[in-house]
Amino acid sequence: MEREFVEWLVANLPRSPLLRIGPGDDAAVLAWPPEGDLVATTDAITDQVDFLLEEVDPVRVGRKALGVNLSDLAAMAAEPVAALVSLVLPRRGAGGRSTQELAEAIYRGMLPLAEQHACVIAGGDTNTWDGPLAISVTALGRVGPSGALLRSGARPGDQVLVTGALGGSLLGRHLDVEPRVREALLLRERFELTAGMDVSDGLALDASRLAAASGCGLVIDPAAVPIAPAAHELASRSGRTPLDHALGDGEDFELLATAPAAEAERLLREQPLGIPVTRVGWCIAEPGLWQPAGGDALRPLAPTGYLHADKPPSAT
Amino acid sequence: MEREFVEWLVANLPRSPLLRIGPGDDAAVLAWPPEGDLVATTDAITDQVDFLLEEVDPVRVGRKALGVNLSDLAAMAAEPVAALVSLVLPRRGAGGRSTQELAEAIYRGMLPLAEQHACVIAGGDTNTWDGPLAISVTALGRVGPSGALLRSGARPGDQVLVTGALGGSLLGRHLDVEPRVREALLLRERFELTAGMDVSDGLALDASRLAAASGCGLVIDPAAVPIAPAAHELASRSGRTPLDHALGDGEDFELLATAPAAEAERLLREQPLGIPVTRVGWCIAEPGLWQPAGGDALRPLAPTGYLHADKPPSAT
Repeated sequence: MEREFVEWLVANLPRSPLLRIGPGDDAAVLAWPPEGDLVATTDAITDQVDFLLEEVDPVRVGRKALGVNLSDLAAMAAEPVAALVSLVLPRRGAGGRSTQELAEAIYRGMLPLAEQHACVIAGGDTNTWDGPLAISVTALGRVGPSGALLRSGARPGDQVLVTGALGGSLLGRHLDVEPRVREALLLRERFELTAGMDVSDGLALDASRLAAASGCGLVIDPAAVPIAPAAHELASRSGRTPLDHALGDGEDFELLATAPAAEAERLLREQPLGIPVTRVGWCIAEPGLWQPAGGDALRPLAPTGYLHADKPPSAT
Repeated sequence: MEREFVEWLVANLPRSPLLRIGPGDDAAVLAWPPEGDLVATTDAITDQVDFLLEEVDPVRVGRKALGVNLSDLAAMAAEPVAALVSLVLPRRGAGGRSTQELAEAIYRGMLPLAEQHACVIAGGDTNTWDGPLAISVTALGRVGPSGALLRSGARPGDQVLVTGALGGSLLGRHLDVEPRVREALLLRERFELTAGMDVSDGLALDASRLAAASGCGLVIDPAAVPIAPAAHELASRSGRTPLDHALGDGEDFELLATAPAAEAERLLREQPLGIPVTRVGWCIAEPGLWQPAGGDALRPLAPTGYLHADKPPSAT
């Protein structure tokens, strides 16, 4: 129940001229008559897998449910337009809350984030059952004049950039998602980016995916990776290094992007986002994920990441 | 956990000029730049509530998951464009099938229906967990030149029409959904319809909703209601009448529409659909749901229907 199913799915989904970008990127891109492309993505999060409802405030769970979808729109440099929310709620409530209190708390987490990103909650479906909480959100966006930012455009010589700092999201940031929507739109508008995605499963794993989608290789310089304070904190308990956490923890929801060298330098100089943009590596022709090994030498970098045992790679 | 939550939700959802039709109809209508409206709907179906996975072929469950959403597009007279599918699958599989076999079977149920209606499966998210099966589908469509068909346009004097025959869907038809997409588009194009919706929760209950949305009343003539063979079959076991089943069973996924009298007569004469269209009543000024009581007299008709204890009225 991993890659196999996605492969089966991709092989079995009918083709359509409307579907400009199908499974394999962060979201689908639909050609929308009469003009202008629609970007659509869906992501479900579930109790016990993506959060522990007995331990966390459901307001934060609601924020995460919408946030991960907005992060996928950001990954495409798409402007959010609307979201649809499907709730399946435990009939007996949870954590001392009734079913309705739970539903309201989830929406209270989503609504400010939706408003912040001018995203209409266009509708929803609310069900109860004997099972645990599952939230499925579909987010719709539109691409700007520069088009959707795909994973597949990186070229040898491009520089690899990342926003913010990575690692240790498990300590709380994985719930308090700040999707980099504004940042992605600004970068896409003002700079020439060749490829991009959000860091959801760990920098190393996601970088290896961007490399594979682009048909090139990526060198990540571990010494350059911006490490979040939470990664240090987690390392003090986990026995792993802060860098390990930054490379592999996942659920950072930062942007990973590539740009031609001169453009990347201008971007790094201007630092236009209010949050840091850091150069963490560069693209090479040789496929795979690499790290510097002294001089011009390279050695493989393991694509560590948060590959959920329960979750095959998302089709969108 | 009923109406209250939907009311809370409607009161708390931010307004937007993009959202032409929000919660309360069968689907949301979004003004989509630069022109042309997008129709979006989401509906989840879950094991033990909407089907019993141990007893039914998951291929049929997949068909239903997409079918109920396409039926909501049909209810708006919208042409399907795309669907996004979110699966949350039991980790141990079900009914002797592995998780992957289950996922594939669900898609095998959806794909022919999607193809039949030229609906692109634009993406999906596939998860597993310790809970039972939940399938959430978001369907996107576009309205034709006549605009979306709303619940709110019925006027006193309009005739009330229904496609097909009603009742007894529990015997199997609730899974083998035939969404009336083609029928709705044809009717919308060739006839003046004033209001419409799909019959998902029972003719009587849904008719009362259409009446309420339109600010008028509806008279349903029980003698005119087309009764499905399955309603007779179910009645032979349930101790209720076939008419009771036709009025209240729900999950018929037929179209309920209103049209001015002359237009309705033309439609009934032409019978353009290949399935029967039947006049089941008419609209009056006095709010509520009514039935003939001899001469010009009317008496109330109970809005029986399948109001799922587990499911508040859908926000879309």
